[in-house]
Amino acid sequence: MDAAEFRRRGKEMVDLIADYLENIEQRPVYPDVEPGYLRSLIPEEAPEEPETYEDVVKDIERVIMPGVTHWHSPYFYAYFPTANSFPAMLADMLSGAIGCIGFSWAASPACTELETVMMDWLGKMLKLPEDFIAGTHGQGGGVIQGTASEATLVALLAARSRAVRMILASDPQRPETDITSKLVAYSSDQAHCSVERAGMIAGVRMKKIPTEQSDKYAVQGETLRRMIQEDKAAGLIPFYFCATLGTTPSCAFDHITELGPICNAEKIWMHIDAAYAGSSFICPEFRPLLNGIEFADSFNFNPHKWLLVNFDCSTMWVRKRSDLIGAFKMDPLYLKHDHQESGLVTDYRHWQIPLGRRFRSLKMWFVFRMYGLKGLQDYIRKHVELAKEFESLVRADQRFEISADVVLGLVCFRLKGSNEVNETLLKRINNGRKIHLVPCQLSGQFVLRFAVCARTTESRHIREAWRLITQLAEEVMQELPN
Amino acid sequence: MDAAEFRRRGKEMVDLIADYLENIEQRPVYPDVEPGYLRSLIPEEAPEEPETYEDVVKDIERVIMPGVTHWHSPYFYAYFPTANSFPAMLADMLSGAIGCIGFSWAASPACTELETVMMDWLGKMLKLPEDFIAGTHGQGGGVIQGTASEATLVALLAARSRAVRMILASDPQRPETDITSKLVAYSSDQAHCSVERAGMIAGVRMKKIPTEQSDKYAVQGETLRRMIQEDKAAGLIPFYFCATLGTTPSCAFDHITELGPICNAEKIWMHIDAAYAGSSFICPEFRPLLNGIEFADSFNFNPHKWLLVNFDCSTMWVRKRSDLIGAFKMDPLYLKHDHQESGLVTDYRHWQIPLGRRFRSLKMWFVFRMYGLKGLQDYIRKHVELAKEFESLVRADQRFEISADVVLGLVCFRLKGSNEVNETLLKRINNGRKIHLVPCQLSGQFVLRFAVCARTTESRHIREAWRLITQLAEEVMQELPN
Repeated sequence: MDAAEFRRRGKEMVDLIADYLENIEQRPVYPDVEPGYLRSLIPEEAPEEPETYEDVVKDIERVIMPGVTHWHSPYFYAYFPTANSFPAMLADMLSGAIGCIGFSWAASPACTELETVMMDWLGKMLKLPEDFIAGTHGQGGGVIQGTASEATLVALLAARSRAVRMILASDPQRPETDITSKLVAYSSDQAHCSVERAGMIAGVRMKKIPTEQSDKYAVQGETLRRMIQEDKAAGLIPFYFCATLGTTPSCAFDHITELGPICNAEKIWMHIDAAYAGSSFICPEFRPLLNGIEFADSFNFNPHKWLLVNFDCSTMWVRKRSDLIGAFKMDPLYLKHDHQESGLVTDYRHWQIPLGRRFRSLKMWFVFRMYGLKGLQDYIRKHVELAKEFESLVRADQRFEISADVVLGLVCFRLKGSNEVNETLLKRINNGRKIHLVPCQLSGQFVLRFAVCARTTESRHIREAWRLITQLAEEVMQELPN
Repeated sequence: MDAAEFRRRGKEMVDLIADYLENIEQRPVYPDVEPGYLRSLIPEEAPEEPETYEDVVKDIERVIMPGVTHWHSPYFYAYFPTANSFPAMLADMLSGAIGCIGFSWAASPACTELETVMMDWLGKMLKLPEDFIAGTHGQGGGVIQGTASEATLVALLAARSRAVRMILASDPQRPETDITSKLVAYSSDQAHCSVERAGMIAGVRMKKIPTEQSDKYAVQGETLRRMIQEDKAAGLIPFYFCATLGTTPSCAFDHITELGPICNAEKIWMHIDAAYAGSSFICPEFRPLLNGIEFADSFNFNPHKWLLVNFDCSTMWVRKRSDLIGAFKMDPLYLKHDHQESGLVTDYRHWQIPLGRRFRSLKMWFVFRMYGLKGLQDYIRKHVELAKEFESLVRADQRFEISADVVLGLVCFRLKGSNEVNETLLKRINNGRKIHLVPCQLSGQFVLRFAVCARTTESRHIREAWRLITQLAEEVMQELPN
């Protein structure tokens, strides 16, 4: 395919995409296929000779669409949102064409520099403490990671390296393996599974801090303090705490104003994972949820969830960039460049797990400019309102209960009654394929999560979803033995 | 921006992209900007109100392009290629629109299933041993990672977990931290820096195996065997060897037919990193370079380098998928789904570091079908021929020497003489901004790397590059003190 054909096919693809997104709600949100459905629909081997583009495009509806879970359908309420906006898609097209691999400043200065400035823009939108802004002379700054999981891991590795350095400074003879075998990290028992995984990857102990329903599933300062004291008494070295703002099960918020000072006093790295909730902090009314950020060493959230920037774009800030870089820096000759030692340039490969990286800040630039801060705030507020609307529908129905405070766009609810009946209800809902939800567990209860996800969700979709849920609930309850 | 405006803007963007790529060779390949150039060109904060799309698009030429290193210019010879093709870009547009996050089968069955089948297609193109093909009943199979660095790390973590399990099986009382503190991994001193980095991340000892110019910078069986014996005698536990096929400095190939049996006998996990060279193995004449794969536990290369699939697409196969999954598996309720335990489904989140993942196999599907195996083979062969053409130009000039065998698309060469004169030559070349190269170090010598990179590179570009290089070399040599 040459450029001339691309002009034609690209324009057809633009229309195909617009058609798909304009008509998405007519598709069943969750696919009706069995595992292995796709293999029999296509050949077992790649073709020897080229096929025509028409053949490939025809197969989108025949092979792909029947197996797609439509995350951007206004009837999709599962997991958390993933972003999808036209400006982000346009920027991604451009990013693909430029196709630079921005591992160093020299590999494409625009790629690195736009990222640094976009991270400053976003940091200012969130009113982050000055320390996290790169500016022209800052010691901190931001980086785009692929996912929050990677940010959690990168922060943990930086913390591990800082802890080892601190201990070796006072006890240079102590073997490093002895130090790392004593390190202990903490996170909430509500934290995302990727936090525990980060501990496994880095080969350090990770302890879960118990939370309670009565405390709204938030980590309490007193609990963390006690665990630290016990662990220190047992000869362990507390070094990392991952706080969560907006947990995956119920969107709970750890008390970082209380937890932060404890971490600071104990020289424990505090990382804040606000993967979902972070986007809301651009609204003044939600910004107080981030109070306590001044005690953090690093902070991360996913604009690719709720800020209209298509996946992947997980934004992470550190107070001291030297802490990150120190954990990773390697400079073979083939990656060195003239400006490297000037102190002015950023080589983002030292900030992340992979070496290569796409030009992802273009997406942020297009989205921030095409929506403006106000447009983005409106978008967040609308989702929160829709969640509140769903919450009031649930509260108005005596058969149901709300399982956790509705702070942002997630509603946790259930039928009053057994876990089994709720499991049955969820199964019916998802088998209907008209709306899609996933469950969570809260205090041993099986709970349904209703997350407002799609950009195009409106009040009528929420009401239709509730109509379906209550209708299925009625069926399920009628089948119950008396 | 609504769908109607996207139809218009998307088509304009398609033309902008086609224009950019059709005229790319008229741009200086390497930008003439100083660190910090971009910040002053744009506002310090995001706009409050939306801007127009025209304003955004105007800034592409004003703000972005002056700072872009044009990786797809036919005058770009730095690093290794990164792929860029029209079919891959079309597929990526579609992937962005579907915008599913395929962490589990249920999150979008098509995303997972197409990936498994495309990895089988590609595995068959490479004539991988049957063990690595998923098929319908295989124990192995493939996964798309973001980068080769991640594949190296994932393999190392799987190896670490397997080694710990094996030792605990015979010595259940031994503390895990004691085991991991004794683990030792190996790679060539020519291996990519990300291999050493993987060791740092996982917190295990990583030893570099020395190579020699006389052995063409390949790891020798005898050397590995001796290091293993010494380490075992010292109480260490060898567990992982990362072989490289096509090193970054000089495209050297470790002798895996010799190294593989040693690893197998010692129960050491052999991972093969063929990031760049792997694409060439689809040609029968280059496939012998992969002989020895039958001894490997895992294998990885980057179609996003040399197989026309845009970044990111790093393909990794494992012989036993349970080894990978065992190192990572975590299943919170919100990620569980009905089909999970059927044995038929793949949840790729257990195969990788991040949780989220894009629908990347669409790019493979479009590219394989639009080029056909023959088209892809032709593409590889053409690049190798162009490298051979450059090699013969160098060899015909008595002032220059070739520094390593030219096997694929990379030519390592230098002026006969000091490192300083070669450093000066390279600086002149890159400051000219007409062509772009990076250096490497081989046996203490400063060497220039000439990698055929762009899809559109032709013989005339190679000859023009050589004309420039010799012209600058003449200048540099005339300035030398006699």
